[in-house]
Amino acid sequence: MTATVNESIRNGVDTATLFATLDAVKAAPAAAEFQFRASNEWINGTHSRSTIDGFFGVGEERAHERTFHFDADHPAVLVGKDNGPTPVEHLLHALAACLTAGLANIAAARGVRLTEVRSTVVGDIDLNGILGLNPNVRNGYQQIGVHFTVKGDAPPEVLKAIVEQSRQRSAVFDVITNQVPVTIEVDAG
Amino acid sequence: MTATVNESIRNGVDTATLFATLDAVKAAPAAAEFQFRASNEWINGTHSRSTIDGFFGVGEERAHERTFHFDADHPAVLVGKDNGPTPVEHLLHALAACLTAGLANIAAARGVRLTEVRSTVVGDIDLNGILGLNPNVRNGYQQIGVHFTVKGDAPPEVLKAIVEQSRQRSAVFDVITNQVPVTIEVDAG
Repeated sequence: MTATVNESIRNGVDTATLFATLDAVKAAPAAAEFQFRASNEWINGTHSRSTIDGFFGVGEERAHERTFHFDADHPAVLVGKDNGPTPVEHLLHALAACLTAGLANIAAARGVRLTEVRSTVVGDIDLNGILGLNPNVRNGYQQIGVHFTVKGDAPPEVLKAIVEQSRQRSAVFDVITNQVPVTIEVDAG
Repeated sequence: MTATVNESIRNGVDTATLFATLDAVKAAPAAAEFQFRASNEWINGTHSRSTIDGFFGVGEERAHERTFHFDADHPAVLVGKDNGPTPVEHLLHALAACLTAGLANIAAARGVRLTEVRSTVVGDIDLNGILGLNPNVRNGYQQIGVHFTVKGDAPPEVLKAIVEQSRQRSAVFDVITNQVPVTIEVDAG
């Protein structure tokens, strides 16, 4: 029995559970409707802190095993106190982590054992946009580049195809390369 | 002298330095060309860790005052170990933090003292997309909603206008609501 259980775990991914989850969602598609959330509190200057704990999924309200807190700030050169990375750096982390999680899952599903996955994400931004100094410059990144180093027990073409499949199924890649409508409501007073 | 220095600090934002920075960039627009980066290392399963330290800006290579590390994972219900929030939750944090930093800066520049800024960001996502079970469902968020509570020494309309200006100058809001090209390169073997 133990050998059978271990067989199903590849790259730390329990493929038996992964396939069972896919079957469960096929049978009840509404289980896949999730809502994720972050709450943020302004601390001082450009420094704020987000709390991430509850989310909705598989038909009910859920909570992470612990509550996560993340700080964001601007560095001194951008008139902040450097209490955390800038928001745009957090975004690059989100992209790298999303592509990497997908990579591990897809490799596991395809029977490929990974030994190393590293990535560097770089984003070019011209702050003349957010500073309001040039109306022709956008506020956000002009382009983002991701560089992966992937090693495992498969030929380079197979490893590259796994990265490509991860790109095609990445939530954060989709958010960044396609547009998502964002509504903002304000209680002020 | 001390009184003068204190006068320039509002909401923890040194407005004298903020305006001096704006003037410096007006005089030398290339100073505003930044590159931000995150490096990510796969740990196990859907768990990865990003490192954020160096960046380029104001004409030279720079480093944060300390190196930041962030973990991302999937919760058990998504076949992970919950070692960190999901990548899509990190993205919501990035959006909240970006809008909030802008709010503090803009309020300071407009002479408004803030006493409280809180926000909740929620994102709706149907995982039938990333699970590859329904080609009509996108991978990323279908919509994102932000709810701000803002208090300060100005009428509600003035506070709301500050949030609106922050939206119009937010880098992360722009990335999410407009598209950014992302290139992915892979070294495999």
